[in-house]
Amino acid sequence: MKKTLLTLAILSTASAYADEGMWMPQQLPQVAKQLKAAGLKLDPASLTKLTEFPMNAIVSLGGCSASFVSPQGLVATNHHCVYGSVAANSTPERDLLANGFLAKSFAEELPAAPGSRVFVTKGVTNVTDKVITPDVAKLSGKQRVDGFEKNEKAIVAECEKDAGHRCTVAGYYGGLEYYLIKQLEIRDVRLVHAPPEGVGKFGGDTDNWMWPRHTGDYGFYRAYVSKDGKAADYSKDNVPYTSTSHLKMAKEGVKEGDFIMALGYPGRTNRHRLPSEVASTFGWDYPAFVKSSAESLAIIERETKNSPDVKLKYAGQVAGINNYYKNRKGMLNSYADSDFLARKTREHAEMKAWIKASPARTKEYAADIEQVEQLIAQRDAEAKRDFYLVRSYPRLFATARTLYRLANENAKPNAERKGGFQERDLARLSAGIAAIDRTYDEKVDKALVMNNLVKYAAQPKEQRSANFDAAMGIRDGMGEAELKATLDAMYAGSTMHNKTERAAWIGKTPADFKASGDSFIKGAVAMYDAGLKREAEMEELGGKIQQAYANYMKAKIAYMNSKGQPVYPDANGTLRVTYGNVAGRAHGADGTGSWSAFTTVKGVVAKATGEGEFNAPAAQLAAIQSKDFGKYVDPKLKTVPVNYLATLDITGGNSGSAALNSKAEFIGLAFDGTLDSIISDWDYNKVNTRDIQVDVRYMLWNMKHVDKADNLLKEMGVE
Amino acid sequence: MKKTLLTLAILSTASAYADEGMWMPQQLPQVAKQLKAAGLKLDPASLTKLTEFPMNAIVSLGGCSASFVSPQGLVATNHHCVYGSVAANSTPERDLLANGFLAKSFAEELPAAPGSRVFVTKGVTNVTDKVITPDVAKLSGKQRVDGFEKNEKAIVAECEKDAGHRCTVAGYYGGLEYYLIKQLEIRDVRLVHAPPEGVGKFGGDTDNWMWPRHTGDYGFYRAYVSKDGKAADYSKDNVPYTSTSHLKMAKEGVKEGDFIMALGYPGRTNRHRLPSEVASTFGWDYPAFVKSSAESLAIIERETKNSPDVKLKYAGQVAGINNYYKNRKGMLNSYADSDFLARKTREHAEMKAWIKASPARTKEYAADIEQVEQLIAQRDAEAKRDFYLVRSYPRLFATARTLYRLANENAKPNAERKGGFQERDLARLSAGIAAIDRTYDEKVDKALVMNNLVKYAAQPKEQRSANFDAAMGIRDGMGEAELKATLDAMYAGSTMHNKTERAAWIGKTPADFKASGDSFIKGAVAMYDAGLKREAEMEELGGKIQQAYANYMKAKIAYMNSKGQPVYPDANGTLRVTYGNVAGRAHGADGTGSWSAFTTVKGVVAKATGEGEFNAPAAQLAAIQSKDFGKYVDPKLKTVPVNYLATLDITGGNSGSAALNSKAEFIGLAFDGTLDSIISDWDYNKVNTRDIQVDVRYMLWNMKHVDKADNLLKEMGVE
Repeated sequence: MKKTLLTLAILSTASAYADEGMWMPQQLPQVAKQLKAAGLKLDPASLTKLTEFPMNAIVSLGGCSASFVSPQGLVATNHHCVYGSVAANSTPERDLLANGFLAKSFAEELPAAPGSRVFVTKGVTNVTDKVITPDVAKLSGKQRVDGFEKNEKAIVAECEKDAGHRCTVAGYYGGLEYYLIKQLEIRDVRLVHAPPEGVGKFGGDTDNWMWPRHTGDYGFYRAYVSKDGKAADYSKDNVPYTSTSHLKMAKEGVKEGDFIMALGYPGRTNRHRLPSEVASTFGWDYPAFVKSSAESLAIIERETKNSPDVKLKYAGQVAGINNYYKNRKGMLNSYADSDFLARKTREHAEMKAWIKASPARTKEYAADIEQVEQLIAQRDAEAKRDFYLVRSYPRLFATARTLYRLANENAKPNAERKGGFQERDLARLSAGIAAIDRTYDEKVDKALVMNNLVKYAAQPKEQRSANFDAAMGIRDGMGEAELKATLDAMYAGSTMHNKTERAAWIGKTPADFKASGDSFIKGAVAMYDAGLKREAEMEELGGKIQQAYANYMKAKIAYMNSKGQPVYPDANGTLRVTYGNVAGRAHGADGTGSWSAFTTVKGVVAKATGEGEFNAPAAQLAAIQSKDFGKYVDPKLKTVPVNYLATLDITGGNSGSAALNSKAEFIGLAFDGTLDSIISDWDYNKVNTRDIQVDVRYMLWNMKHVDKADNLLKEMGVE
Repeated sequence: MKKTLLTLAILSTASAYADEGMWMPQQLPQVAKQLKAAGLKLDPASLTKLTEFPMNAIVSLGGCSASFVSPQGLVATNHHCVYGSVAANSTPERDLLANGFLAKSFAEELPAAPGSRVFVTKGVTNVTDKVITPDVAKLSGKQRVDGFEKNEKAIVAECEKDAGHRCTVAGYYGGLEYYLIKQLEIRDVRLVHAPPEGVGKFGGDTDNWMWPRHTGDYGFYRAYVSKDGKAADYSKDNVPYTSTSHLKMAKEGVKEGDFIMALGYPGRTNRHRLPSEVASTFGWDYPAFVKSSAESLAIIERETKNSPDVKLKYAGQVAGINNYYKNRKGMLNSYADSDFLARKTREHAEMKAWIKASPARTKEYAADIEQVEQLIAQRDAEAKRDFYLVRSYPRLFATARTLYRLANENAKPNAERKGGFQERDLARLSAGIAAIDRTYDEKVDKALVMNNLVKYAAQPKEQRSANFDAAMGIRDGMGEAELKATLDAMYAGSTMHNKTERAAWIGKTPADFKASGDSFIKGAVAMYDAGLKREAEMEELGGKIQQAYANYMKAKIAYMNSKGQPVYPDANGTLRVTYGNVAGRAHGADGTGSWSAFTTVKGVVAKATGEGEFNAPAAQLAAIQSKDFGKYVDPKLKTVPVNYLATLDITGGNSGSAALNSKAEFIGLAFDGTLDSIISDWDYNKVNTRDIQVDVRYMLWNMKHVDKADNLLKEMGVE
């Protein structure tokens, strides 16, 4: 009996709540009925106007989403999105990560980390015809890619004549459509407030992608412009940016079942991939990645065990590997329990049958679909072949290749240089090359490389790269000892580990490189021509795939529309709207029967350990113990809610997205999804998918009752 | 509607499952009906026979529980109970903690950590009349305590004439009854098998007291005796101990609702305390402890931040503080949500009314109950007064006091020395004093002391210890700077931080101490006489409390029996039986709606991070991914269960207790309880209390399919 109830509950939850789709704002009228059913009170058409409320309050930080929450350029986003700026301003004496930071006045605000930006979207224009011009449409392969790039550069250059703006041409539906996105690029960004890590990162890596969750993942920037309202470099004369509108904090708390939408910039999804890509990714690529990551983590742990300094150097890399390791593992688990591939295969076959049923459709699509299937199979096979190859480069060897490429690109006029090696990229490149010391240790690097090199070298000759083999001195049938000796010699033959020596290569000519006896530099020179050839081959393949893929997407859209279904494009880092409802889950995870929609400060107390990942500040614990909750108590929960689940369809890049209620009032910030939601990057799962928000009441309560951020609360019109 | 269902579910769960009681084996016939209702298939009387199956398979490790699981002395217990032995045998080159350990033959077994014991109970005898002899019964206060001690020593000495045995007199019901426990003390204990920490301690401190849980908390010892079956020191000529019976692994997996019992040695509970003790503990003591612990953790983190070596020195202390911090905080949370004090007060009042209703009962009990209430209020007030005092001793000052006490005790004949300072204690004392360096840093110690000393010194003079003030040079109204200077001078005036200097004090005479100019030694000498006086006062109070308390317990038992309720004594480290059912929970914790009874290996994969606390071994993850489960799949879960919840009434000391099914077959090991169960140490909570077992199927699966422990499986008759 219990089971039946549970099943019913799941069904009713699923039909009532689950809401797939990262919609382009202009698409929202297509789902007006669903938006209304979910509870939206606004006219969906109002969400299509990017320069009006609420859309013009939504900004991008580049990699994170955010929103204006005051008339004076105050920007709310996730703690993990301002983390770098907090770290950059921290010193051992003034540990802002540990203690948090609050500017009690504009004057106390701190410059955000170098390179921090606030992008305010000013316009989105369909430029498909200007990208796929008739002359370029005729081309294929690399020529096609080059043609697109040329057209895009021209469009961007024209647009960027409006100083202080960044313009981007973004491809949608695998290159079927292109939009020009014009954004004001605010360069004077300042850190206003971040709670202590014990709040903003409470739960750390352990709780990452987990529920129940208790993370106060919020922080504030302020955008500054010149007195005449233009984007400008940091200056004390700059003034807070006045956005045309901003989000207002909801007066009423959110509750289970309520409408919710998140506006932000999701990074990348793979929902329109082919069945063969699914099979290859989940059957080979991710399992290999997981295995390789586990090995790398074990190697780093082993090699840094007795060297706290080196351990610290690799902490960032460990966190990074760990993040993807947990992510991929989570997806593999979901995949193993799903019928994803079978369903994808069936749907693809159904589409192909629909095409075949009409001679006109057959003529338009059939060849390209066959083509894209073949080309992608080829690309996947090459990626599989090169899996260990790309992991077998000593880090400084890869750096040497970058430096030599730079020398070669520098020989060309700036406009003709490869993207990433142009004049505007130089500062970033130099800084990166100088900073290697902070995250590099030869012993660890060598151990990581050896682990992959052994596997690479064990591949049959025809699966290996002759170019790499020659540069590294790898021969058929070399044993581990020989490989080790070869590798040792290569490391020993280079002075690239020396920061000064390494930096000295920036600005040198190709001839200087050719004259060098440094082992890594020699390797870079030796691999150069074949490397360029390989790059061109990949571009040729990419161009062919792009062309066929776009037509496959056209077919898919036509097919879906024929069934009355609108199609949203895969995420591509551009502004999207996802909507749904606040909802727990009738089934939990391993060991839990179900999930409540909300967590509360009680859970913070239960998890708090006084140190490490669960180091809730004493002042916060005291406020909880003494029930110093003010007006932020949830009437049903009888305490302050911390995080809540919703059915929103989000992915990386959505971090910091404003969560809005049916009246577009601010009810929190999206910051994560649950582990069994991650598969949704490929296959939206109606039953499992839940994203996680920090409740605005927790933010405001903590700001008011713990961190005493009364100035900000006043600015936001809250207190 | 949903809420109603939930409430009903809770009610039915509570009435069907919740099972309070840590029963002495001989009491089980009193709860025969309840045992049968829960599902026990055996005759409860069979569990009262300590020298027959299954009770004679149950052993104590001193602090942990365990059981024989083969005819050759193989002992199963928790990983955290063999942890010290794994650590003791680990080296940087052979890291048994990280990699686990498996002896593939008897010869490969390793000596357990020094001091490891297996205690096999041989007899339990009621010796109340021999402890409370007529002459002693007449005494009160310290004389009474001394009288008891003398009688107990005589009973123990008589019993221990049987060489190789340890005899203990344990008090029950607050000293109302005394039992002599005679145990074979097996001294040759060897480590047989422990999984890697990534299994045995999976989840680490983060998951401690948490559900869902995925910890493979198991490990194996073997007990060795001399060829003639006597307890003996380690010798290669020793042979495995042959227990008269042993537990057999259950053939069928356990499922929700099944009967379960755990046999083991719970350490201490406080279920029979007075209302005033509850008020004092939860109203003052625990909150103060939590606050003080948080401060200590913060201080240690701050002071060791940039010194990895010092951080390592304090890692054990941090873990210890953390454990109690989380424990006490958990209890306080439960307490805040409960009517415990009101209920306790009401029950106590009802008992007093029942006494008052009868002149005979009034005569027998009333005065003692009034007496115990007063005396305990006095003791609690003194503890409150001395809270900061006991935390204001520099560690080496406390060590100096121990050393001076030792010198004074050494001047007496051995038998007359205070317990803890006798000849048999010397080795342990010396080792402890030598080992201080490994866990001590002056800077950290001083910071911890200062934090408490400031609070101590701020107390009014009459609340402070004149003796301590004099020794430390503390005067009324000293500010922080003065206290700091005084403390600095005290540390600077001692050479006790030097290991050799410190050790040299062992064996010196009181005259040597009196002649010393070392600041800590001088302080120890100065405080000695007053310290002894205070000790005598506390013993006097303790003796009075014991006498009155025993009579209060007699009254309580009579009262409960008058209502038809049997009374089990509070846990005191002796053998107990707790029974109940395997059961999830209709309500979960913050953010979870409900708890499933079982977790599975799927959850291990979800939590695994490849490092740190969630470092599941790659081989295990591979076995899970490839579904290499053999016969250990649960038919309903379709995978291998890891941990499961039950309604057993356990506490610290129960760790490693064998969990048995209705036929007394081995179905796992109890190892933890959930955070909201901890309050049960004071107030058994029928609705919340769940303990956590590692499922025998997970143990056996991991041993078979991951660690290849086929030799042990064969020995246990499994494969």
